[in-house]
Amino acid sequence: MTDFSFSLLATDGTARRGTIHTSRGDIETPAFMPVGTVGTVKAMYPEQVRETGADILLGNTYHLMLRPGAERVAALGGLHTFMDWQRPILTDSGGFQVMSLAKLRKLTEHGVTFRSHLDGSAYELTPERSIEIQTLLDSDIIMQLDECIALPAERPEMERAMELSLRWADRSKAAFGSQPHRALFGIVQGGDDAGLRARSAEGLKAIGFDGYSVGGLAVGEPQETMFHVLDELTPQLPADRPRYLMGVGKPDDILGGIGRGIDMFDCVHPTRAGRHGHAYTRFGVINLKNARHKDDRRPLDEASPNPNCRRFSRAYLSHLVKTEEILGAMILSQVNLAYYQELVSGARDAIAQGRFAAYAEETREGWSRGDLPPL
Amino acid sequence: MTDFSFSLLATDGTARRGTIHTSRGDIETPAFMPVGTVGTVKAMYPEQVRETGADILLGNTYHLMLRPGAERVAALGGLHTFMDWQRPILTDSGGFQVMSLAKLRKLTEHGVTFRSHLDGSAYELTPERSIEIQTLLDSDIIMQLDECIALPAERPEMERAMELSLRWADRSKAAFGSQPHRALFGIVQGGDDAGLRARSAEGLKAIGFDGYSVGGLAVGEPQETMFHVLDELTPQLPADRPRYLMGVGKPDDILGGIGRGIDMFDCVHPTRAGRHGHAYTRFGVINLKNARHKDDRRPLDEASPNPNCRRFSRAYLSHLVKTEEILGAMILSQVNLAYYQELVSGARDAIAQGRFAAYAEETREGWSRGDLPPL
Repeated sequence: MTDFSFSLLATDGTARRGTIHTSRGDIETPAFMPVGTVGTVKAMYPEQVRETGADILLGNTYHLMLRPGAERVAALGGLHTFMDWQRPILTDSGGFQVMSLAKLRKLTEHGVTFRSHLDGSAYELTPERSIEIQTLLDSDIIMQLDECIALPAERPEMERAMELSLRWADRSKAAFGSQPHRALFGIVQGGDDAGLRARSAEGLKAIGFDGYSVGGLAVGEPQETMFHVLDELTPQLPADRPRYLMGVGKPDDILGGIGRGIDMFDCVHPTRAGRHGHAYTRFGVINLKNARHKDDRRPLDEASPNPNCRRFSRAYLSHLVKTEEILGAMILSQVNLAYYQELVSGARDAIAQGRFAAYAEETREGWSRGDLPPL
Repeated sequence: MTDFSFSLLATDGTARRGTIHTSRGDIETPAFMPVGTVGTVKAMYPEQVRETGADILLGNTYHLMLRPGAERVAALGGLHTFMDWQRPILTDSGGFQVMSLAKLRKLTEHGVTFRSHLDGSAYELTPERSIEIQTLLDSDIIMQLDECIALPAERPEMERAMELSLRWADRSKAAFGSQPHRALFGIVQGGDDAGLRARSAEGLKAIGFDGYSVGGLAVGEPQETMFHVLDELTPQLPADRPRYLMGVGKPDDILGGIGRGIDMFDCVHPTRAGRHGHAYTRFGVINLKNARHKDDRRPLDEASPNPNCRRFSRAYLSHLVKTEEILGAMILSQVNLAYYQELVSGARDAIAQGRFAAYAEETREGWSRGDLPPL
């Protein structure tokens, strides 16, 4: 079984091109990870996700521990077998969704107790239990449990959560032990405070992780705040380990993150936007609920490499969205995931060629020009 | 462009094996037609429908005239282009759904006026307008407008509706004119009364149609009533034209219909049942909401020719159904449509080999044995 490792292949300014090696295959970085919330990337067969170019999926510990349950998934052969995705899977720690979804949360030094948002049943999540669950799921890349707070927040609150997350990082590392075919990532917290972020990074480096996640961003703050935190933070992260910006984001956030040295991203946005009738293309976002598309026989983008962008008319997609047909969600989820993969694939090529800044500018110019004029 | 025609290839008792030739490809009969209600077979890409073995789809005139509208579909290149299904399409007349879905219906000799169940807007459907709409959709097999009543019903009511349907058949034929590359089917009505059915069939034959549909069954009556009507009726239908039993049915209804000389079937049941967590296999119906499947790592049917029946565990499917994930609807719709196609494909082979009765008995025995014992 291949040990987890990271090869930095090229840099272009602060942008990085690399490969993460795992026992279930390589992940080319910068990478976008589609989110398979509860054991499925919504409205997609696993092979359709792979065909968009995804090397790795993300699974949500919180959702999976509630349904179908980590012990059940383990008894059924692990998450890869369960959902028939044989390539790498990264799991989050569950902490973020406990804070955003669960009821009657109680946070202590030991961990967090909560009740399921589905049926009110009681659970406990500790650093040790989170590692155990992620191991039961047979995750390839495991996250430490952390405490993620919303922004804006007061400095003492950011500091408290960051320090707690560091202590939990230590316990997570001990619980993880030695599993060379898996990776354990630490999570930098500290809100929008550069000093706290630096202390968090130092603390995590002292513990030592296979990769470094940046948590607590895209939680309500403006994009410029997020970029500012990254500008200060990423130079302090080890160059020889992958860096993962959690829960980010829209295409422009991803370009900005790549330019600031981030290697991995995940977000529900492309599939969720697809289910709501929005299509991402080189023209930016196309809202298929807009009446202008009702009689438009043109495809989304006749020059796209993605067949779904060429074969169906905007009128048809608009009809599927209006009638709330499942096929609309299927097509637009695929269109958006394919566009995200096209975006990071283009970034990888551009970094290798030393032209990432130009690539980012051209891409943003395409979005600014916007959609085709109405018929 | 190929003219519409029907070749009767073999008979086995009253069961028939044939091929319908259309300008968009052949349809092997007995055929099951998946229903693409409003321009999509729900939760399926068109190529996935084709891969199950379907030669032809059904489109619903009522739904399509409301959304996106027949004139719009025509301007967009017709229904085949609209939904990217280049093989044959049969459209119903709209009458059945006007009666079951529309509001404020008013039926006269001229036609039926109604209000949309979606937004209350007013429409009129006459025999002539139904033909016009179906032609705008560019349908390959067009149905006459008829009046379909529920059973049980009183004889005078069945007679009135049958006679009206015959007069509308005459007007439909006149409106259709000469279009050799399309087919126009008449619809036998008459409820559960053999005499009325016989008069309806005689009247339609006198007008002359490319095929003969049997309407007004599977509308509330017991299966044995339906089979009894077919036993009396099908010998009176021309042997050299296809026979279509509208809106039928469950697998056992289809076997029974084939045995009584029916060539074509359609029903929303397989896709609707799939969206509700039911899987059709050679074991009969498997209800994935049943708790017995939660920890069952076995696939639906490891001997099935359908990969979806082999690759996903019952536990996973049960999880997708429980969490109401779109992928569950996608997989189970595919599983059911594939099983229906397997059923009619097996029937075609059996009829060609003169062993349809044995095939039907073996198939029913499999259903009676039921599902695998629980783990």
